Amino acid sequence: MVEPGRGMAADIAEQPDVLARLLGEQIGSIEAVAAEIARHRPRHVIFTARGTSDHAALYGAYLTEIRLGVPAGLASPSAITVYGARPDLRDCLVVGVSQSGGSPDLREVVRVAREQGALTLAVTNAPDSPLAQAAQLHVDVAAGPERAVAATKTYTAELLALLLLVEGVRGGGTVSRDEREALARLPELAARTLDDPTAIEAAGRYRFANRIVLTGRGYAYPTAREAALKLMETSYLPALAFSGADLLHGPLAMADPDVPVVAVVGAGPGGAAMREVLARVGERRADLLVVGPSDVDLPGTKRVPTPAVDERHGALLDILPLQRLALALALARGEDPDAPRGLKKVTATL
Amino acid sequence: MVEPGRGMAADIAEQPDVLARLLGEQIGSIEAVAAEIARHRPRHVIFTARGTSDHAALYGAYLTEIRLGVPAGLASPSAITVYGARPDLRDCLVVGVSQSGGSPDLREVVRVAREQGALTLAVTNAPDSPLAQAAQLHVDVAAGPERAVAATKTYTAELLALLLLVEGVRGGGTVSRDEREALARLPELAARTLDDPTAIEAAGRYRFANRIVLTGRGYAYPTAREAALKLMETSYLPALAFSGADLLHGPLAMADPDVPVVAVVGAGPGGAAMREVLARVGERRADLLVVGPSDVDLPGTKRVPTPAVDERHGALLDILPLQRLALALALARGEDPDAPRGLKKVTATL
Repeated sequence: MVEPGRGMAADIAEQPDVLARLLGEQIGSIEAVAAEIARHRPRHVIFTARGTSDHAALYGAYLTEIRLGVPAGLASPSAITVYGARPDLRDCLVVGVSQSGGSPDLREVVRVAREQGALTLAVTNAPDSPLAQAAQLHVDVAAGPERAVAATKTYTAELLALLLLVEGVRGGGTVSRDEREALARLPELAARTLDDPTAIEAAGRYRFANRIVLTGRGYAYPTAREAALKLMETSYLPALAFSGADLLHGPLAMADPDVPVVAVVGAGPGGAAMREVLARVGERRADLLVVGPSDVDLPGTKRVPTPAVDERHGALLDILPLQRLALALALARGEDPDAPRGLKKVTATL
Repeated sequence: MVEPGRGMAADIAEQPDVLARLLGEQIGSIEAVAAEIARHRPRHVIFTARGTSDHAALYGAYLTEIRLGVPAGLASPSAITVYGARPDLRDCLVVGVSQSGGSPDLREVVRVAREQGALTLAVTNAPDSPLAQAAQLHVDVAAGPERAVAATKTYTAELLALLLLVEGVRGGGTVSRDEREALARLPELAARTLDDPTAIEAAGRYRFANRIVLTGRGYAYPTAREAALKLMETSYLPALAFSGADLLHGPLAMADPDVPVVAVVGAGPGGAAMREVLARVGERRADLLVVGPSDVDLPGTKRVPTPAVDERHGALLDILPLQRLALALALARGEDPDAPRGLKKVTATL
């Protein structure tokens, strides 16, 4: 019998190499796609994705608004695929993000979007997939075959591909020298983050938890959502993710000393905006774990430190200990994260 | 001492009157706003909201795409308020939805949107609020003061106001006669739905649940999300909401006989698209409760029936038994849903 979790562990460990490959071999072709997008000057960017890729798409939407000054959002495929909506998409860029590129609903959204006048782009780990072929433009995240059902290396690969794409569009088809230099450090920082044992130690705390809340703001919010999905997929732990602001609008009532809270707190404006959230969580005497470079000193708070980088880049590092935490927790609970019950690697929804 | 839950019960019971008021006194002023929007012919609609109002905004985004053929999405305020994004919003309509109109982040998004060239609209229950005053256009949902912290009547009022608005834009400033006739039946159907005791009976089943999953597709997805928030706010029950499609992309692994699943299943295309989801949930032998007019006949499935109307209108009815379920469950657990711990009525996030 194969050792449980071996595939997921190998996928996780590969991430520094996957990031290095995108920054090396792949950057040229991503810049070429970025140049094409810059030439079209889209007035709007609409992302469409499911599951883990939806969290990468959310990161892409933040980047698009903040770095390009172009409004961006996530669209539900069902308006088009279930209700037959045919929105006017001239001047829009529609981006389908999918590890497998195999989900029929995303392919259909991209097909309709193209018919409705949009420029279309697929970001996948499968250049021959139906989604990649339906779109006019394609970015290959080149993460190699994923062993586990729970996506890890394709997530960080999608994040970095979207970042290079947006920075490439910003530079009219070229990622700036400053950005390249900052990004060149990421593979090494990722390796160092993966070497830190703190996340594994933290997993022990959740052995008997029956629910968990994750929160973050801005660039850290996709991290909170993706970590929640990993915990649900691999440890079957009901994990609720909220933006720090939304948490205060209702779900905070749930927090008490029996509900662990994991907060992803960056070193920039998103992290600063989390301070009020952390204080309110502290008032509820919730069990709090802070992931990130932030120097939070709330009494009784545990920390999983990650390198202090720009929050835009932090999204690529802060998820790493949380992937390891999900893996460790699944193993501690006697589950095999490589083959979660009830799931398939390619999910076909219409 | 005031009887626990009395305020929430009164708010819930008022909903038929609130809907009738919107269809009577308020429709003229909503059509006037719709005429103004139709004149501007926005190329994109961006909604921004928090908490319960975010679910009404999600419904508004579906309506905009499906009924107007205009791309629509939800924007996170933090790109603008935390990271200082200044997107080019010419040809856009930006809609802030908020019961209180008091949250500084939404007001700031609307202020910046206006500066960036957008037409701006506030949908609130507070015509004198800062949000209403920051926007060029305002729709008053006229639901009257809400007694409980957990929003109920302002939610359905926001839904109907957004529906009248979108149908008004569709008709160039006039809601069509067919739509008016269909909507005229809603207050009576809402009253009948509220009289049905099935939801209260169902609440007993969840007395000892420590988590719950809610799911729906299309117009029913906002219902699933709003029901989840009510359960979290009032019963402190961790409630996870997923679109039916997203549920299959990972979280399904959590479902087992100990995790109750509530599926909102409409009488139209969204309901039809839920069939595969229900089958997969059934395979996992999860405890399933189906809310809606759908005639699902999976063995062992419980049902809370609601009137068979167009799914676009069903969103206004299907939430009603779920509000009552949340109230009943909170009382059964000895909690006071009128004053959830840790929450305030107006949540000020930046």
